[in-house]
Amino acid sequence: MDENVLIEAVPNFSEGRRTDVIDELTAAIQAPEVQLLHRASDWDHNRTVLTIAGPPQAVLRGLFKAIEVAIVRIDLGRQQGAHPRLGAADVVPLVPIRNISLDECVVLARQLGRQIGNELDLPVYLYAAAATRPERRNLADIRRGEYEALRQEIHRPARLPDFGPAKIGPAGAVIVGARSFLIAFNVFLRTADVAVAKAIARQIRESSGGLPAVKALGLLVDGQAQVSMNLVDFLTTPPHAVVEAIQREAIHLNTEIDRSELIGLIPQDAVLAAAASALLLPDLTTDRILEVALCQQTGSLCRAPQWRAKRCFGER
Amino acid sequence: MDENVLIEAVPNFSEGRRTDVIDELTAAIQAPEVQLLHRASDWDHNRTVLTIAGPPQAVLRGLFKAIEVAIVRIDLGRQQGAHPRLGAADVVPLVPIRNISLDECVVLARQLGRQIGNELDLPVYLYAAAATRPERRNLADIRRGEYEALRQEIHRPARLPDFGPAKIGPAGAVIVGARSFLIAFNVFLRTADVAVAKAIARQIRESSGGLPAVKALGLLVDGQAQVSMNLVDFLTTPPHAVVEAIQREAIHLNTEIDRSELIGLIPQDAVLAAAASALLLPDLTTDRILEVALCQQTGSLCRAPQWRAKRCFGER
Repeated sequence: MDENVLIEAVPNFSEGRRTDVIDELTAAIQAPEVQLLHRASDWDHNRTVLTIAGPPQAVLRGLFKAIEVAIVRIDLGRQQGAHPRLGAADVVPLVPIRNISLDECVVLARQLGRQIGNELDLPVYLYAAAATRPERRNLADIRRGEYEALRQEIHRPARLPDFGPAKIGPAGAVIVGARSFLIAFNVFLRTADVAVAKAIARQIRESSGGLPAVKALGLLVDGQAQVSMNLVDFLTTPPHAVVEAIQREAIHLNTEIDRSELIGLIPQDAVLAAAASALLLPDLTTDRILEVALCQQTGSLCRAPQWRAKRCFGER
Repeated sequence: MDENVLIEAVPNFSEGRRTDVIDELTAAIQAPEVQLLHRASDWDHNRTVLTIAGPPQAVLRGLFKAIEVAIVRIDLGRQQGAHPRLGAADVVPLVPIRNISLDECVVLARQLGRQIGNELDLPVYLYAAAATRPERRNLADIRRGEYEALRQEIHRPARLPDFGPAKIGPAGAVIVGARSFLIAFNVFLRTADVAVAKAIARQIRESSGGLPAVKALGLLVDGQAQVSMNLVDFLTTPPHAVVEAIQREAIHLNTEIDRSELIGLIPQDAVLAAAASALLLPDLTTDRILEVALCQQTGSLCRAPQWRAKRCFGER
């Protein structure tokens, strides 16, 4: 693996309210080689999602340090929120970004899981591509009953952890895995009827025969119906195709899309595909973008020109 | 001006057929500091458009060298093509990109014009923001009658050049200027009736009371009606808004858009605005793009992940 190897990690911590704890987690995860790409905390969910990227071993070191903070500072016996959770450091997915395969990320996930089990004495479950049993591929299955149920059931064979002790303390368990990059994308409908969102989710998700590589749920969020999605392969089904499909279904159900919401980051190729669709410009490729063209020969020029700030436009 | 000052130049040469001449022009314009962003040659138009960027003085040096090649290799007495032209090096616009104003590009355009006039003994006209007379702001007005008319009229007071001699040889004249960044964007209609394209162009262009910062013409290109546009301030009227307006007008005229065509480069912000429109995601900002987030701290990471090549997706 050369120096350009890059993975992303999207650790989810069960704390979205105490800013001092969130700051401590964020500080622990960072390092010169590790970039913090995005940080989102939600009071209702009582959860913080950090998105980091860097060379694999630097990312693993940052994750380990942040998990050390989480198990000291977060007590699952007291923590409550709308989002299901199994542990203080609840889920830690590793994602291949550049010059690394998903299979190599599986190896890294198992390395991290073993280290957490051995050195932090926490039960660790491997999930997604790193799962050791088919029934542990799906995160929701591992998390069933949450922390409270796991405390009772961890000794059962079906719930024995992949690493670490079969006993559970106030920090709960950690779920570590590897998966491909996904786009977390929600669409709000102009209705307060959650049944409409559930019906549309059923129509569009792959598991009910809808669009490939789309996972969807119908939710009620702040009194508004929402189709909440994971687009697990945006090259197969890009977000603009999902929006078009939802708009069609919504019209059938006498409503329409209000707006969308992106959680975390979206790859440039998905943005480009959406733009190509809006512009009816099928041959829109990355190299046609001014900033990308500027960037190809001199990395330091990759920043976007500050059109507004520099008043390049509209002067005459 | 600091080292991050960046201008673009989009010189148009009256040669789109002889590849050896085009290669010679391209070679002459390049330098370590100057990036060739795009290169387009058209046989019918018999014209080559190079898009370069770099620090101002390096760009001016490259332009001067390429113009030296053009005047030796291109003879306007023999050159014929669909595109109007006044000279071998026909038009040379300078465009502010970063840490430089349009007014500063006017100063650079006049510096280049003076050098071409003095050292290459060619008549030079200043246009757009660099024009010295209001009637020379518009390129089409300067080029009226083309090379053939200018040979007869160059001694008239209205046609005296801004720099260089009032006499014209086989290389014709050079039109040098400064303008803001523009997007050259064409929309093909599903009709061969050029009158439809002309009617739509009239509806949408600013000069007829249409969309601000839009210049539009109706043309017939390869037997298909085309609305050919310059979007001279994409922050005011972005390309996706133009596509929406044309689609509306086209439906009124019983046709529809076939596809669009981008000439040269498009700024990332225009792509983002189009994507935001397609995704119904008004708060889509540059920092939500994975590659941009990766790029913020380490310039060398600004390349897009090679999703397909590295098979990050769809492995499972």
